[in-house]
Amino acid sequence: MSEVFLATLQQSQSQLKHYLESELDAIAVNSVSLLAAMRHGLLLGGKRIRPHLIYSVGALTQTQSKLLNPVAAAIESIHAYSLIHDDLPAMDDDNLRRGQPTCHIAFDEASAILAGDALQSFAFEQLCTVDLPAAKNLDLIRCLSQAAGYRGMCGGQALDIEATDQHVTIEQLQAIHSAKTGALISAAVEMGAITAGIDNIEHRKALHQYGQSIGLAFQVQDDILDITSDTQTLGKPQGSDTDANKATYPALLGLENAKLKAQQLHQKALQALDELPYDCENLRSLADYVVNRTH
Amino acid sequence: MSEVFLATLQQSQSQLKHYLESELDAIAVNSVSLLAAMRHGLLLGGKRIRPHLIYSVGALTQTQSKLLNPVAAAIESIHAYSLIHDDLPAMDDDNLRRGQPTCHIAFDEASAILAGDALQSFAFEQLCTVDLPAAKNLDLIRCLSQAAGYRGMCGGQALDIEATDQHVTIEQLQAIHSAKTGALISAAVEMGAITAGIDNIEHRKALHQYGQSIGLAFQVQDDILDITSDTQTLGKPQGSDTDANKATYPALLGLENAKLKAQQLHQKALQALDELPYDCENLRSLADYVVNRTH
Repeated sequence: MSEVFLATLQQSQSQLKHYLESELDAIAVNSVSLLAAMRHGLLLGGKRIRPHLIYSVGALTQTQSKLLNPVAAAIESIHAYSLIHDDLPAMDDDNLRRGQPTCHIAFDEASAILAGDALQSFAFEQLCTVDLPAAKNLDLIRCLSQAAGYRGMCGGQALDIEATDQHVTIEQLQAIHSAKTGALISAAVEMGAITAGIDNIEHRKALHQYGQSIGLAFQVQDDILDITSDTQTLGKPQGSDTDANKATYPALLGLENAKLKAQQLHQKALQALDELPYDCENLRSLADYVVNRTH
Repeated sequence: MSEVFLATLQQSQSQLKHYLESELDAIAVNSVSLLAAMRHGLLLGGKRIRPHLIYSVGALTQTQSKLLNPVAAAIESIHAYSLIHDDLPAMDDDNLRRGQPTCHIAFDEASAILAGDALQSFAFEQLCTVDLPAAKNLDLIRCLSQAAGYRGMCGGQALDIEATDQHVTIEQLQAIHSAKTGALISAAVEMGAITAGIDNIEHRKALHQYGQSIGLAFQVQDDILDITSDTQTLGKPQGSDTDANKATYPALLGLENAKLKAQQLHQKALQALDELPYDCENLRSLADYVVNRTH
């Protein structure tokens, strides 16, 4: 992993953390415990890949941080809420996330449900504050609401649950993962482009291709790590997909072919970047990171 | 109850139902079961007070239905998602809603969680489609996201849970209800005004006063009905607040004083309408309905 990339990633993680903390601190106190549960879910850390995509695409045109921060906060809030709800007993029933107790363990189930709900509203509130012409804010909100909802993340999660214990084809698995994980990662790239003022249709197409490819690659690598890594490195129980009899790439293709699939998607992502007239070094490193990460 | 009002209410219920059905039908199929759970939560009926407020405020300036439909759909989607999540075992654990099995009973808990989540995204998607200048759409989204989130409905629900089995003052109870129920009803009035192009600041203030008053009156009447009505009329278990030892107006003030409180709020709502240069007959009837309804 390039040191330059890791430094950039760390810089954007830290930038987002400070922004989120200041935004949460500025909220007029209502329910203290709900705010604490939201904070737990949102500030627990994590790779912050989606915000990093926003910052990295924004950097292609030297977009100001004050424009990118609320967009990064919005996409991370959606991601954080989805993890809180996915971890619930009625869903994946996980006690551990990023090496810490999950929200319903640290608080209780009702608080975890409400914290997730409130984080989703918070995401759309954030997108209203981006200092752009209103039509652009609306583009951001349209993109995020579609990626988060029935056609995107929620729909993918439902398909994933339905596929448990079922035989699925590789096409079905791809459809599940494109919706479940791909939609939000792809939306991060698109929202970065909207905020960065990248309106050229060919450039947007190339970024879309990049987003789709790394989105799917991210999930393939997640499936691979669930088999090849260990609980301490992952910060969540290793082997939980296998235990739950989930449809995964290694289960369907075998481990070696799953690794090959990740590499192919990686190449596709890099090729897409060749179409762009910008310095894409950081986006290249991000694509490398997605398929080479160990947790 | 005036027959004219009931006919208008029925008309707007039917208009929203057709609009929602056509919107849900138009969604490209992803997870069939998730869509069915969303449909269950959204089309089960109910009073549709919040959409009716949108249509009634819109009618003050003869606003076109095609502008009002997605706004009404958005606020009802937020309300429907909140009911789905409130009914979950970890929250109020209710099996019956509007005389029908609740979402997690008709489907399962995971589907109910996801259906609620997807309905919240759907609400914001709908607000992107309103054919207004983008700045107005953004006003609508800002209003709804604030009313739905931490400072509004979710925060109020969390405060309500915290207040269970606790002694609360009448001021605390009012703060809980203003957030839990009042915020969304008040937002319906404001969103109606935004869509209707009512921009005069004095008129907006009067409508805000109306919204706040009927919002709180609605919750006081809900508390009263929980004691004075029966399960069949309510379509949900009578006495569930008392059973759960919830903070309510009758518990705090006594039944007669709670009724008096509802009448005072009713008067305040009517007085606010006197400030408006529009024919407010329907909004008056709606205020009457809120405090005179039997379920």
